[in-house]
Formats: sequence, C-alpha cells, structure tokens
Amino acid sequence: VSDDERSAQLAADAALARSEAAFAGFRYTTPALRARLLETIADAILGLGDDLLQVADAETNLGIARLTGERARTVAQLRAFAELVREGSWVEARIDSADPKRSPPKPDLRRMLIPLGPVVVFAASNFPLAFSVAGGDAASALAAGNPVVLKAHPAHPITSERVASAVRQALARYELPAGAFTLVDGPGNAIGLALVRHPLTRAVAFTGSLQGGRALFDAAAARPEPIPVYAEMGSVNPVFVLPGALAEKGPALAQALADSATLGVGQFCTKPGLIFVCEAEGTDAFVAALGARVSAKPPAAMLYSQLSERFQEGVAALARVPGVTRLGDASAAIEPGLGRPVAWQVGFAEFQQNAQLSHELFGPSTIVVRIPSSELWRAAAALEGQLTATVHAVAVDAELLPELVAQLERKVGRLIFGGVPTGVEVAPAMNHGGPYPASTDARTTSVGTAAIARFARPLCYQDASPAVLPRELQDENVAGIWRLLNGQLSQDDVGA
Amino acid sequence: VSDDERSAQLAADAALARSEAAFAGFRYTTPALRARLLETIADAILGLGDDLLQVADAETNLGIARLTGERARTVAQLRAFAELVREGSWVEARIDSADPKRSPPKPDLRRMLIPLGPVVVFAASNFPLAFSVAGGDAASALAAGNPVVLKAHPAHPITSERVASAVRQALARYELPAGAFTLVDGPGNAIGLALVRHPLTRAVAFTGSLQGGRALFDAAAARPEPIPVYAEMGSVNPVFVLPGALAEKGPALAQALADSATLGVGQFCTKPGLIFVCEAEGTDAFVAALGARVSAKPPAAMLYSQLSERFQEGVAALARVPGVTRLGDASAAIEPGLGRPVAWQVGFAEFQQNAQLSHELFGPSTIVVRIPSSELWRAAAALEGQLTATVHAVAVDAELLPELVAQLERKVGRLIFGGVPTGVEVAPAMNHGGPYPASTDARTTSVGTAAIARFARPLCYQDASPAVLPRELQDENVAGIWRLLNGQLSQDDVGA
Repeated sequence: VSDDERSAQLAADAALARSEAAFAGFRYTTPALRARLLETIADAILGLGDDLLQVADAETNLGIARLTGERARTVAQLRAFAELVREGSWVEARIDSADPKRSPPKPDLRRMLIPLGPVVVFAASNFPLAFSVAGGDAASALAAGNPVVLKAHPAHPITSERVASAVRQALARYELPAGAFTLVDGPGNAIGLALVRHPLTRAVAFTGSLQGGRALFDAAAARPEPIPVYAEMGSVNPVFVLPGALAEKGPALAQALADSATLGVGQFCTKPGLIFVCEAEGTDAFVAALGARVSAKPPAAMLYSQLSERFQEGVAALARVPGVTRLGDASAAIEPGLGRPVAWQVGFAEFQQNAQLSHELFGPSTIVVRIPSSELWRAAAALEGQLTATVHAVAVDAELLPELVAQLERKVGRLIFGGVPTGVEVAPAMNHGGPYPASTDARTTSVGTAAIARFARPLCYQDASPAVLPRELQDENVAGIWRLLNGQLSQDDVGA
Repeated sequence: VSDDERSAQLAADAALARSEAAFAGFRYTTPALRARLLETIADAILGLGDDLLQVADAETNLGIARLTGERARTVAQLRAFAELVREGSWVEARIDSADPKRSPPKPDLRRMLIPLGPVVVFAASNFPLAFSVAGGDAASALAAGNPVVLKAHPAHPITSERVASAVRQALARYELPAGAFTLVDGPGNAIGLALVRHPLTRAVAFTGSLQGGRALFDAAAARPEPIPVYAEMGSVNPVFVLPGALAEKGPALAQALADSATLGVGQFCTKPGLIFVCEAEGTDAFVAALGARVSAKPPAAMLYSQLSERFQEGVAALARVPGVTRLGDASAAIEPGLGRPVAWQVGFAEFQQNAQLSHELFGPSTIVVRIPSSELWRAAAALEGQLTATVHAVAVDAELLPELVAQLERKVGRLIFGGVPTGVEVAPAMNHGGPYPASTDARTTSVGTAAIARFARPLCYQDASPAVLPRELQDENVAGIWRLLNGQLSQDDVGA
C-alpha cells in the first residue's frame, strides 16, 4: 500500500463515517425542511455574488456570460428539486388494503421510496457549478434524504470550496447535521477509488470520461456488496441530415451545427461530434459552409492544460486517418492551453473502416460523414450507445425516417428532431443518459427531476401500525400526494 | 475452450440471434395485443390441465395442493401484467410543452419507458411455475415488450417444456414472432454464462443461490458493455419477538413460526431462518414449543437430491457450532432425498461469534437466538441485507420499537409486523427484493406489478412530429393513461 493510498483511505474513512452518522437524522427530515434546505443553498450561492463567477472564470476559462447562465441553471435545479420534494409524490407511494376475509387473509401493504444512505458524487470539470458541488447530482441525492460526500474536481478547487461554504451555511441555518455534506478534495485516483470502495458508500454519481467512469463502475461492481454507479460519460451525439432537409435548409443547418460543435470550446457532453450528411446536390456546399464556419472561430482557452494537450493529440491522430480531410486552414501554430475549432470530412466507406472516428474527442472538433441515403440505417445500427442523436428531416424525407428512427431509439437516451444536441433542458421530461458507453445505467437520467430516483429504493411495510408508518403511507394523506391506492392513482385518504 | 463451452456458445448465439430478430417487431406490438398474449398464455397453461401438476409434482415433490396454488398464482401474475399493460400508465409518460417565446426557446420534450431488447431469465428450482418458464420475470419482461430467452431449471425439464409449449401456442395464435420466447435447457454453468455474456443480451433476471446470482452479476459487470442483473438470492428473513408479544401470544407465535419455517420443506426465499426472541419469563416455553412443533413434522422429499445433501451437510455443520443446541430428537437416520425439519437455539453472545449462523441454509431449519431486549438494535444493525424482517410487538413494546425499526428499514425490502415472512402477495405495493446479498439490485422488485420497470428505460423525444411519436406521447391521450403533463399528473390531452 502506497502512502497515497493510505492517506486516501484515511480521508475516505473520515468522510464516510461523518456521512453515515449524519444519515440517522437526515433521512427523517421532513420534505418541507429538505425543500427549504435546497432553496437556502440556492440563495446562498446567489449570495456569494459575482465574485463566485470571477473565481470560476479564472479556474475554468469559461467566461462570465456562460458562467452566469450556469449559475442560473444551478439555482433553478436546486429549486426544482425543492419543489419536487415539497410536492412529495416522487416517493411513488403504493397502498394495497388488507382483506382479512380472503383465504388466505390479504395483508395491508404500503410501499414507498426511501433514501439509500451516503452517496459519493464526483464533480465534473466542464460544469463547475451545474454538475459540481451543488449541481444536479448533489441536489437530487440531498433531496431524496441522502448525505453527500462530494469529490471536488481538481480543476476548480476555489470555486468548489466557495459553493461548499454555501451548502454548509444552509445546513447550519436549519441546525441540520454538518455531515449531510462533506467536501473531499485532492487530485489523483486513489481518493476516488477509496470513496467508491468504502463499505458505507451506498451509491455513486459521476460525470466525466469513459475511462474514469468505467474505473469507478468496475470498482463498485467488485465490492463484496456491489452498489449502483451512475456515470455519465459523454458520447459523439450523431446528427443525421436527410436529403430533403439538406436541400431546404442546408446553409442554416451548417451554421447551427458549426455553432453547436464549437459552443463552450466543444466541451459539452452533448457536442455533435459526428454529422452524417446525405450525398446530394447540396452536400459539397453544406460541407464547405460548415468547414468555413468552424475554422473561422478563434482558438479559445480550454478548461485546463491537460485537456488541450489531449485535444491536440486527438486532432493530430484524426489528421493521420486515411480518407479523412481537414476542412479549412491547418497551418497556424496553436498556443498551449488553447483549442482551435476544427471540422473534418470523410466518406462513409472510410468511416466504417476506422472505429476511432466513432470515439468522442473532447473539444471543438466535429466530423462530417458523407453517406448515401440508403446507408443511413446502417450507420445508425452500427452506433454505440449515445446520450443523444439528432435527425434533420422534412416532409420529402418521410420514407427514410421510420427505419432510421427505429435504429436510433435503441441507441440513445434522447432523440432530437430539427435542432442541436447542446442545450439540455432541466425539466421533468428530460432524459440525460443513454445506453453504454454514454452512461453506466441507461435506466436513469442525470438531468431533470427524474434524477432523484437514482438515490432511493422501495421499502414495503406489511401490516404496520400508524406509529411505525412514514407520513406518506398513513391512511390520512396529509400532504395530498399521488398514491397508487389499490391499483388506482389517487390523492384520497385510505378508505375515503 | 472446452467442448462444453463451445456448444454453450453456439446455443447462446442461436437463442439471442432469434430473440434479437423478434425484437424488431415485438417491441412495436400494441399494449392491447401484449395483454391478450399474456392472458392467452395464462389460459393455455390452464388448458394443460392437471397433467401439468402431476408432471411438476413428479419432478419437484412439491405436492399437488401446493402446485395447484402455484399455478393459480402464475396465472394471476400473467393476468395482472396484462391488466397493467392494457391500462398503460406504467410507461411513466412525461410531456413538457414547448415555449418558443422563451430565450432560449424551450423545446417540446416527451419521455416514456421503452423495452430494452432480449432479456435472459433464469428459472428457479423452488417455484417450477410461478418463478419459472412463464413466471413473474418472464411475464414482466414480455409485458414491457422484450423478447425472452428462458434458461430452464434442470430440476424440472418436462414441466418447463410443457409451459413453454403454452407460451409458443399463444404467440402463434396472434401471429407474433416465435423468437419472442426461446426456451434454452441443459445443465451446467457454461450455457448460463454464455447467455449473460452474449452481446445481444440486454438484461438478466435470476432467482436462486447467492453463489449463482453473484457469478452472473460478475459476468455481466465485466462485459465490454455492462448490463443490469436482477438476481434474487434469498436471505435468512430474521424475526424479532419482543417481550410484550412473547408474553401475550408466545404459544401461538411459536406455532406460526414453526409452520412458516417448515412450509414447503423450508424451500422458500422468505423462510424465517433466524428468530430473535427476547430473554423473558416465557422464553423457555416459547423455545420448547417451537422446537417441539418443528421436530414433530415428518421428514419430506426436497426438490432434488443435491439440495437434500447440501441441507444435511448444513445441519451437520450447525450441530458443530459451539453454543448451538438442537431442539428435539436427532437420533433417527434420514433417508437420502428427504429433509427433516430442525430447530436450534443459541445465545446472543455465541451467535455474534459465528458468522455462519447468519447465512441462509436452504431447507427446513431455523435458529432461535435468545437475546436481551437491550441488544435488539445491535442484532438488527449487524444484519446483512434481507428480503424481509418481521417484528412481533404489542403496546408495551413501544419503547423498543423505534430504534429496531430504524435499523431494519436500512436492511430489508419488506418489513412485516405481526405475521410470518412466507406468503408473498402479488400486488402493486409488494416489494420482493432488498439490499445485497438479498438481491443484486435493491431498487427493484421481482414480485408485483412494479417488476415491469426492470425491463424498460426512458427515451426522450425532443421536438418530434406526431408521425414519429409513440401513441403514448401523442397530444391526444387516446388510451387515457396518466401522464406528467408540464409537471402535473393528468389524463388530459396536451393543450386540453
């Protein structure tokens, strides 16, 4: 055991012991109190003022405008989970009444979702607020009644500490256990693995690379007592431009897709990294317009220097793939730390021969694949799991659509028509996840209110007295939540 | 690669290729058609007549009375899933309407659960009908629109083939693809592992031993593309008898628990294998009554000979544990293939020193642990995950209850008051599952209608046209299902 591993183990022991101790009280907090906690965290983040944005910009290079939007999203997420918890129906209460006259007698069964226990959340590098310390994962875990151990991302430590202070302040205001939230920092894999392997950890959430997410998944699956890992690991988010859409709105599409692929220096999980464009009269013009638009964008600072190094390596590797052509000028040297937007084109035959063209390159790069319409379904069928796929089709493309959609439905978490994949709405119907390798658990989402279900499990009480039953399962439906009452959704009291 | 592995691989390839081909059509069947399919399977099973029960009895020794009940349960399960699918709200439809005036414009989002693809189901030995070929796992997977590859249990091959013929007959009646159901038989682990590792397999359900379930879980987690495994692996189902309950109804409790522990020759996942009885005036009498009732039961044939051998070995091992006393006469020899009911007692101190006393022994054996009331919470806190725990308490036990219940809530899937753990109601509020090692996924149940969620995942359609949207997500709510419409549960049309 190395010194690194020993100190990681000590840090994990301390964090989880604190978290476990807090769970005893935190899991029994009322929904109203947890709602106020989340709202107070939101207020406290706003209370940090624009200093927070300046610190985050200095650490991430994302810019004040983007970070202002991200802060608004973070605050909106916290408030959305507050509203969800206050409303209360998310616990999926189900009650089946007893029938003592039946033979054998039918018991009284009452089931609801309960929190799991300490949850380890790994912050993302690319969203220092919305997917970090008080981001969607932490908000949903706390909302469900779980203490959170938050592994900060080493790329924005000061931002992390500032937001953590807002969470601590909110916990203190309601005299809630401080151990309901624990910030753990430090670089390296040892601490992350120690947190995932710790016997008191009950679930893990992660947003980041495939390599990182898979390592945590493997560690969790190998535990004596396996636990769920919700790793959102990005994807290439393929876009399909059908011939009719190309003819009708090719120039506008080239512009919209170029903007989406380079937004935030291409550092979104939903960046469109593959654009399948049907071979037709307008294809050359589309490719030229997209290439021109992308390469006209200035190089910009990426989140941290390692990322831009990896991006440069990826660009160099793509340039060596047979049949792949760079669109636009590649002659100017790139300063370290920057990412220069780049687009490529390749024919479908060459695309099929090089698996690496289907792998995500994190940064402002996108590949246009020129494809015969008749091969669209084949391209879709060969895809790995994706967060999203996007289809551009108009009325004349109707014949191509059913087979393409049928293939894509099996591959993605979200299927977009006529738009771009970047811009993930925080809403009840959102699904941000997808079949592996987009995520390790396609049954769940990491964005939107459905994310709370990741951190809860059902418990059934049989023939329990009112003294034992949680409020949500009492005869009297004080909170007016929706319950499945003898198979019917209802807001009534039992026996009403 | 051995010959065994090669032939297992060929069998798995054939089964999954057939299943995958069937999925293309089966996933788009209407809910009404799938409901009729499930009801027709139920009718076809009844149509096999009492011959089926005689065949099953010959293969399992479970007796005609029990098998008649199990057939009724199997048929009721199929009909319950038919009703669930016909009603349709299980898809958890969510619709968030567009707001083109917002900046940025808000998209139209529509999300529902869709089937996963080929599901591999492993039949259980101890329920040749209700957890086997057309049991709860297969019924819920088919209900959700997934083709099923059913690995028959080698202990009842003829029963399996008979029930499979009923499923095939029902598929043929509606001209549904025969590949929607594929029976795979043969003993050994090679075929099971080949099915789980097959790239086309999308989920696995299993009911059986901890060793078997964990092997499948590990194989699934180690795949290039991991898939969910729902393994229900049993537990010791601890019972807690508090002092007031002991005083008030000790003799009746001893009798009820003895009956539950030996029901079906102790071959239930929910058999009470540990009975914690508080030390009090009536403890000796309770232990004596329970021991007498258990040992008065005649030896009976177990499911198959290996099981009774394992049971005899387990009994011999328990007899060697220091501090463990057998209740009743142990002198008579046991014929091969039979299980003789046996009860034991042990003090709490000795219990704590022997981890093996906390492990399941499949068969008619139960251990009474004499425990000081003040230690109840400690016994609960030290438990592994369980399918169930049962508490017997009356008014005077009120002070002991909160701490005990708080510990048990974290350990179990179902918490029973005043009853016995055997007898699992098939109902919407049932939860049959629990923290590891009771199951590999405590977020799910294998009994009751909530089981359908195991074989589905969310897909979100963004700005999709009516031509693309599934019926459940159209503006017009033709089926009248419950949908979360802009955050409110509703049966309305969009825009109504």
